[in-house]
Amino acid sequence: MMNQGYDRDMTTTPEAREFVSLLKSLRAVRQFADRPLPPEAIRDMHDVIRWSGSASNRQEFQVLWVEDRAKLRQLSELKGYARHLAGAAAGAVIVTWMQSDVLNAFDEGRIAERIMLAAHAYGIGSSIGMLSRESRGAAQEILGLSEDRTVRTTISLGYPAEGALRGGRRKPLTELVKRLQV
Amino acid sequence: MMNQGYDRDMTTTPEAREFVSLLKSLRAVRQFADRPLPPEAIRDMHDVIRWSGSASNRQEFQVLWVEDRAKLRQLSELKGYARHLAGAAAGAVIVTWMQSDVLNAFDEGRIAERIMLAAHAYGIGSSIGMLSRESRGAAQEILGLSEDRTVRTTISLGYPAEGALRGGRRKPLTELVKRLQV
Repeated sequence: MMNQGYDRDMTTTPEAREFVSLLKSLRAVRQFADRPLPPEAIRDMHDVIRWSGSASNRQEFQVLWVEDRAKLRQLSELKGYARHLAGAAAGAVIVTWMQSDVLNAFDEGRIAERIMLAAHAYGIGSSIGMLSRESRGAAQEILGLSEDRTVRTTISLGYPAEGALRGGRRKPLTELVKRLQV
Repeated sequence: MMNQGYDRDMTTTPEAREFVSLLKSLRAVRQFADRPLPPEAIRDMHDVIRWSGSASNRQEFQVLWVEDRAKLRQLSELKGYARHLAGAAAGAVIVTWMQSDVLNAFDEGRIAERIMLAAHAYGIGSSIGMLSRESRGAAQEILGLSEDRTVRTTISLGYPAEGALRGGRRKPLTELVKRLQV
């Protein structure tokens, strides 16, 4: 049970290919349909959060799960890039409290990715939001957090609105991955 | 093609559950078998890197793919927590160059997570390594990078050695995810 996934064959399996194709097809969704998230998808997202890796496995983070529309709107109006929270079916706010802001940010990136991928498995769209440092105090107040908590990363979640999916553009592979020549 | 994954049914599908179970079962692997990685797995990992999200989709990063044992050993000996690179079949070194170190770290966390999950789909184990700031200059020299490049995060990759898989421990869900009460 603990080691599941490591006992598969080393050659390409259909499951591996399907998994990789899901990993590749995640795109930011910023407009959401007015449609609730099914409880089993929410439960799975929470479970995935629990099993996410973190710096030295310390798990110095907490995810606040916000479904209240008024709170979502309040957060969306803060300075930063999280306006899409206003239309989301749910918002996940990642709270961290390690000394190093770089370590916090690294863990936030990891957790954000897992949440979005778990959502994606259910066809639920997502987008990362960032609250700017000036609005941290206001965010702490809205969320009932003490001053030593870092609130920066949010995830907007919801089924994609009609037309919300746009094709992604990416740099060519040769620019992004470089095999080191000896 | 672009939007694959978003057209699935909103109720639980066997594929969603399997995907979530893979997301939950990723564990750090620090001891590796002396066994090469299959080309199709490497190709898929590179493809996943290409399609990883990044701050404002700017893709201000590059992944250096290192298979040379001498280089891996050199990197593993640098100050930090990347000793397991020495025994890895391959090392992925994430290089970033945005002004904000927090933004760099966030993107590094996202990319690291994708690489490890793509590897996991093939039964390939992985572990994050961190080079400390003091060893950045030496890392730049080993990798032939200029001084404006941030080198911090490495991923060690390889099939798990016998006995390398240990069960993970995690805090209880109630501590990690909190539903915001209104």
